[in-house]
Amino acid sequence: MGLAELVGVERNESGITVVAGKLAARFGERFQTGEAIRRQHAHTTSYIPSQLPDGVFFAASEADVQEAVELCAMHRVPIVPFGTGTSLEGQVNAPGGGISVDLSRMNRVVAVHAEDLDCTIEPGVTREDLNAYLRDTGLFFPIDPGANASLGGMASTRASGTNAVRYGTMRDNVISLRAVMPDGRVVQTARRARKSSAGYDLTRLLIGAEGTLGIITELTLKLYGIPQAISGGVCQFPSIEAACQTVIATIQMGIPVARIELINALGMRSINAYSKLDYGESPCLFIEFHGSESGVAEQAQSFGEIADEFGGGPFQWTNVAEDRAKLWKARHNAYWAGMALRPGASALITDVCVPISRLAECITETENDIAANGLIAPIVGHVGDGNFHVQVMIDTEDRGEVERAEAFVGRLNMRAIGMDGTCTGEHGVGQGKSGYLVHELGSGIDYMRTIKAALDPHNIMNPGKILPRAHS
Amino acid sequence: MGLAELVGVERNESGITVVAGKLAARFGERFQTGEAIRRQHAHTTSYIPSQLPDGVFFAASEADVQEAVELCAMHRVPIVPFGTGTSLEGQVNAPGGGISVDLSRMNRVVAVHAEDLDCTIEPGVTREDLNAYLRDTGLFFPIDPGANASLGGMASTRASGTNAVRYGTMRDNVISLRAVMPDGRVVQTARRARKSSAGYDLTRLLIGAEGTLGIITELTLKLYGIPQAISGGVCQFPSIEAACQTVIATIQMGIPVARIELINALGMRSINAYSKLDYGESPCLFIEFHGSESGVAEQAQSFGEIADEFGGGPFQWTNVAEDRAKLWKARHNAYWAGMALRPGASALITDVCVPISRLAECITETENDIAANGLIAPIVGHVGDGNFHVQVMIDTEDRGEVERAEAFVGRLNMRAIGMDGTCTGEHGVGQGKSGYLVHELGSGIDYMRTIKAALDPHNIMNPGKILPRAHS
Repeated sequence: MGLAELVGVERNESGITVVAGKLAARFGERFQTGEAIRRQHAHTTSYIPSQLPDGVFFAASEADVQEAVELCAMHRVPIVPFGTGTSLEGQVNAPGGGISVDLSRMNRVVAVHAEDLDCTIEPGVTREDLNAYLRDTGLFFPIDPGANASLGGMASTRASGTNAVRYGTMRDNVISLRAVMPDGRVVQTARRARKSSAGYDLTRLLIGAEGTLGIITELTLKLYGIPQAISGGVCQFPSIEAACQTVIATIQMGIPVARIELINALGMRSINAYSKLDYGESPCLFIEFHGSESGVAEQAQSFGEIADEFGGGPFQWTNVAEDRAKLWKARHNAYWAGMALRPGASALITDVCVPISRLAECITETENDIAANGLIAPIVGHVGDGNFHVQVMIDTEDRGEVERAEAFVGRLNMRAIGMDGTCTGEHGVGQGKSGYLVHELGSGIDYMRTIKAALDPHNIMNPGKILPRAHS
Repeated sequence: MGLAELVGVERNESGITVVAGKLAARFGERFQTGEAIRRQHAHTTSYIPSQLPDGVFFAASEADVQEAVELCAMHRVPIVPFGTGTSLEGQVNAPGGGISVDLSRMNRVVAVHAEDLDCTIEPGVTREDLNAYLRDTGLFFPIDPGANASLGGMASTRASGTNAVRYGTMRDNVISLRAVMPDGRVVQTARRARKSSAGYDLTRLLIGAEGTLGIITELTLKLYGIPQAISGGVCQFPSIEAACQTVIATIQMGIPVARIELINALGMRSINAYSKLDYGESPCLFIEFHGSESGVAEQAQSFGEIADEFGGGPFQWTNVAEDRAKLWKARHNAYWAGMALRPGASALITDVCVPISRLAECITETENDIAANGLIAPIVGHVGDGNFHVQVMIDTEDRGEVERAEAFVGRLNMRAIGMDGTCTGEHGVGQGKSGYLVHELGSGIDYMRTIKAALDPHNIMNPGKILPRAHS
């Protein structure tokens, strides 16, 4: 599986010329074709080479998006939605060229319904912006994928992150959404009730569709009360196995842990070096509890007892905000700490997710694979969900090394699938993982293709993503 | 909106004859055409008149379901899945005749993965059977719609019930499923990882599709550890408004209430009479907390303080299992207590769901509507979700009364939709609510139709359900 397997999309040169001309005439400065801007809109944190769009349209409203989609539909031109460009699997690349629709100017908070614990926002609002906006309400939006991504992008890739173990993923936290569909019409997928049995779940169909079925123009999200108390801490373990057994027991006990993050020995070494800390260089869990004062104290104590049973600890925790902030800053800097292990290299980041009973085995086999192939690749994981990231540091100029890294990723993805897991827990498929979907989902791919063809018969919506090449 | 609006399905007489003949020849006793059995398979708790299938096939395996679907597909004959027949909106009716596939013999628990907090089951397993099976594992499956429904049926109607406020609905608790699709092939929608970003969410597409896109043949469900402690109690309020404000404040405070059920004054009167109790006949909340010993005590105390602030209470709670069982038995018997208000009458049960900020207003307007129209109709609600049921007691022989009740339901559904809510929080659309979907979802219906036509081009899967008649 290599880049050569990327799904090709034929260029419609004449259509692109017509659409670009019309967008320029209609929107002036809001349609840009300079190379720097086009390059920026194909750039991601990914190792996958950029494929530039022919122009970038800065949409300011749903009506703008509709106009662009109608034009692209009429002339059979690809349209690629863009949020903040923090996706990891080439989701914003334009393999057949076409128009990138930048949604960052659609960044209004439309409404906050505090009594209903929900809010309605435009897709360009980022998660940090939303939480800053909410600061005085006592409410917050929990999903935290690390990057300050746009919420439209997070919905499109079904993102999650550190506290999904407690609050769920984007799948669980979108009440309804609006989208411009491939035929240019707007759909509102649901109303604002917390639950509904009113027909097919169009909300969930668009979440995780990566812009291939429509462009999200508004989201209604669940909010949560900021916990009265938060406690957190760090706990070292003699082995990955001991750490994972502690996680399993913690969840089985019903301790409502808010975050439980594993970092392996190499990851801890990189964090110590980068953040000037002196943790032991053995597998480590970063943990956080949300609740009442006495609740979080009780949770922390119960967790400490479980860790002790499996040979971990001592578990040192704090409810002092500054100390917690320092701790989580170290965890959040894990990516940069990993980068510092090999200055100048690029990161290839994986995100397999397996049933938690297989997690220790999956991580241990993966560590052995890393060692056997001489790769530099720390591991961090949202282990409450069975999800972990390997950050493979590669020199993208060295073709042999890229191939070795890709082969490693292939083995990792197939290992996870073989353990009844998925090749992508939270980053999405994009271009990088479409080749693995058929191993993971078999005939499911055919039904995805049927749905895609029915809703987007001219394949204009982010073509070349998710669905692998059809083999006839 | 009346029964005359039901979506018609043309009978394919010759196809039905061929399929019935082949099923009888192939499966013998497992294919039944006697009227009693056919009647039983069209019977539901609904007021909607029965429409009998032409035969009932007792499937014992996924391969059986595949054979039946292939036959029905070849001869363009409707196929209607049947679990326990506890659906409320005519979901198991056969408006164009055809074959009812009874899945109750597919009742094996395939696997329990205690470490992963999940299990894999066949669709005919009922929720009570599953929990009995799990008894010694310390785990349980929480979704409780009242009836002892099959889990396949619960997934198909996106069911929920009393503790969705804490544990979510069927949408949130199915990790993956297998289904026989309209072309006769089997799909496995996902693997067993707790979360995934691997393409379109086929799991959620089939949940709530009421058998119109495929027949579910296996489910992998989330399980939970049985809470260490459970406390519960009853709290009276001077008004619906006071009760709803208490619910809002409780949820906003982040108190992880496991159940919070409202019963209105008439509901309380019926319960007192039926269960020989002496509660006050004013709006009442039944509440339950799950957690540690100290946790549930703290939650109960915090709730009591909130209720007091809004003029409710005193909140009397207990963690003695027998006392709680008595309390919840009274709540669970609310349906029968309502029936006893008018012996011999049938119940028409609604299930609108609105944003919780509109709940008091919605219930109060509905109580006024009930009074103005001289209906006998107690109200119970899963108010943590904004969902409530009106149980309209009607004499189905009295055409005028049925029409008055249907007109009332129409106003109620439109009232909920007008408050940004849904006409169905948990019972599904079936035949009874398809006429309201267009008001609720507008163009969403068109995309549902597109998906249905693409996946089931011959409209053999439970035809005449969910999607309203197309107006051209």
